[in-house]
Amino acid sequence: MDRRSFLKSSALGGTAAAATSLAAPAIAQGNTTLTMVTTWPRGLAGVWDSVERFTNNVATMSGGSLTIDAKGAGELVGAFESFDAVVAGQADVYHGVDYYWMGQHPAWAYFGAVPFGMTAAEMMTWYYADGGMALHHELGEIFGVRSFIAGQTGAQGGGWFRNEVNSADDFNGLKFRMPGLGGEVLSKMGASVQVLPGGEIYQALSTGSLDATEWIGPWSDEKLGLQEVCQHYYPAGFHEAGPALSVGVNLEAFSGLSAEQQKIIEIAAAEGHQANYALFTAENGPALQRLRDSGTQVHEFADDIWDAFGKGSVEVLGQYQDDEMFAKIHESAQNSMRASGAWLSLAESAYTRQRGRVLSSM
Amino acid sequence: MDRRSFLKSSALGGTAAAATSLAAPAIAQGNTTLTMVTTWPRGLAGVWDSVERFTNNVATMSGGSLTIDAKGAGELVGAFESFDAVVAGQADVYHGVDYYWMGQHPAWAYFGAVPFGMTAAEMMTWYYADGGMALHHELGEIFGVRSFIAGQTGAQGGGWFRNEVNSADDFNGLKFRMPGLGGEVLSKMGASVQVLPGGEIYQALSTGSLDATEWIGPWSDEKLGLQEVCQHYYPAGFHEAGPALSVGVNLEAFSGLSAEQQKIIEIAAAEGHQANYALFTAENGPALQRLRDSGTQVHEFADDIWDAFGKGSVEVLGQYQDDEMFAKIHESAQNSMRASGAWLSLAESAYTRQRGRVLSSM
Repeated sequence: MDRRSFLKSSALGGTAAAATSLAAPAIAQGNTTLTMVTTWPRGLAGVWDSVERFTNNVATMSGGSLTIDAKGAGELVGAFESFDAVVAGQADVYHGVDYYWMGQHPAWAYFGAVPFGMTAAEMMTWYYADGGMALHHELGEIFGVRSFIAGQTGAQGGGWFRNEVNSADDFNGLKFRMPGLGGEVLSKMGASVQVLPGGEIYQALSTGSLDATEWIGPWSDEKLGLQEVCQHYYPAGFHEAGPALSVGVNLEAFSGLSAEQQKIIEIAAAEGHQANYALFTAENGPALQRLRDSGTQVHEFADDIWDAFGKGSVEVLGQYQDDEMFAKIHESAQNSMRASGAWLSLAESAYTRQRGRVLSSM
Repeated sequence: MDRRSFLKSSALGGTAAAATSLAAPAIAQGNTTLTMVTTWPRGLAGVWDSVERFTNNVATMSGGSLTIDAKGAGELVGAFESFDAVVAGQADVYHGVDYYWMGQHPAWAYFGAVPFGMTAAEMMTWYYADGGMALHHELGEIFGVRSFIAGQTGAQGGGWFRNEVNSADDFNGLKFRMPGLGGEVLSKMGASVQVLPGGEIYQALSTGSLDATEWIGPWSDEKLGLQEVCQHYYPAGFHEAGPALSVGVNLEAFSGLSAEQQKIIEIAAAEGHQANYALFTAENGPALQRLRDSGTQVHEFADDIWDAFGKGSVEVLGQYQDDEMFAKIHESAQNSMRASGAWLSLAESAYTRQRGRVLSSM
């Protein structure tokens, strides 16, 4: 998925609105209104659902004493100016994916997604029970924001291919659209990595100027029509196994809230992480079935391809280890992931693999 | 896991306290206090954490206007009288696992766990995005309670065995401790199913009056010392793949709360489902590693054993299909599970399997 490109193509993001100076937060009649800027075009399926659920729950739980006014990308500031706007106090809250702020600090990537990183369940484990949230807040202190993960797309698909890929060698020269750290990994494998906006992917695949692409998951990919121009789909990918969405509140504004309002934000965000994961998963299941039914061939990458994904991912993450905060967060996340992952693979994955085999034979 | 037996052995559960007539809910100075009865001995690791997190979050988010006073099993009523106490208005809220109320209606099982049922992620998907919560409330209407899932242990382990089991035939005559619907499945496989209290398992295994047992997961099993009397551990089991804990509020008491208090209960419960899953998973990972390090041999059941588990589970669930509400909930859950499970297996499970293989070789 490349929200940056998508937003550019949507003509909503990237265009900073005329700079509006905001008194933040606005307080009237004992009620507080916070202004939220987001990286999403208003109404974008899945992610805007996350914005609405969060803001509605905060308003209801606070009995109206705390209202959050959410703006689509470009309405107040451009999508990728959201973080800076909150840091500067021009807005009170952002909603986006924290890997968008890697330019400000590479460690933000860990609270979105990194290659060969955590699944949704592993993210829950690390974030809520194994030190992740405290590190998120420690990182936020540097910038004066208090962030919480607040949404979750679940594993993003490995991608759509015009032709099957059978070994790591098949990635050599492959014209593959994948942005970010994942794209860096594919470059190491010899791919010709391209970063096209979402709106241009379909045509590029149909004309052959692209050989393969990733986007989000079956629900979103189907809307883009990728099944019409690629016959081969690889549901499992390495680049974003459990990407979280986040809200971040200007720390001064957050400190000015009551203890009950602060807790309402924290708990509404956490509930939103789970609910959004449920939404994407509920939609992806039937979408995958529809794709199969309409002729999409579903594959799994060969072992040597996964070997190359893993080697490249470790190398790419290694490039940032000189930064002390990055190294600290990396170590915490990797240790947690290895421990929870070992348990979840042996318990849950083994179970679901067997259940799938048994039920499909009955 | 058999909380019933555990509680009996703990001398806390099963003993109804002198019947105290409660005015429910108690309202003083504009503040409301609800009395919660639970199926847990006060302080029991993992599950009592769920009680405390929920009650603390409700109190903080409501600014103290809504307080929940939680009682351990036996303090007001016996553990398994909790549901009836809330239905009767003797208490306001229960915290337990809904399969304990199968005697009141078999469909409650689906909001706890059923054999060959949903994992935690699948439960999230069904409950929050695919109709599960609405069915939970519909079932609750019959009894005058409004229930929400509020905790989650994650997949309970397949069990501890004195000797390896290599085929379904090895279950014939095996003295296996497993309560509930899972035990019924093992009976169909020829096992001699026993339902011992938790406190008696260790000795029964060491003397050979038991050949095998399930309990909860590595974190809890290690505390019971099962690794000292069984060398063989099977992390993946069929009987409780993602058991939820629930809170249920007397519907009249719930209707008397403000819209903000009702939403606070709903969101605190949902947040608790995710947080509790995170806690158990964070603890199970390192516990599994400690068990391996101290000599436990970790296995996976053979395919024909899983075939028998699946066949037996379908038969056991089929016994209740004459009940219209059960059949309706069963169909909703099974359809959701098959759709989300297909996606999650191909995307997440395939990814984590490959990641585990690749990282362990680096």
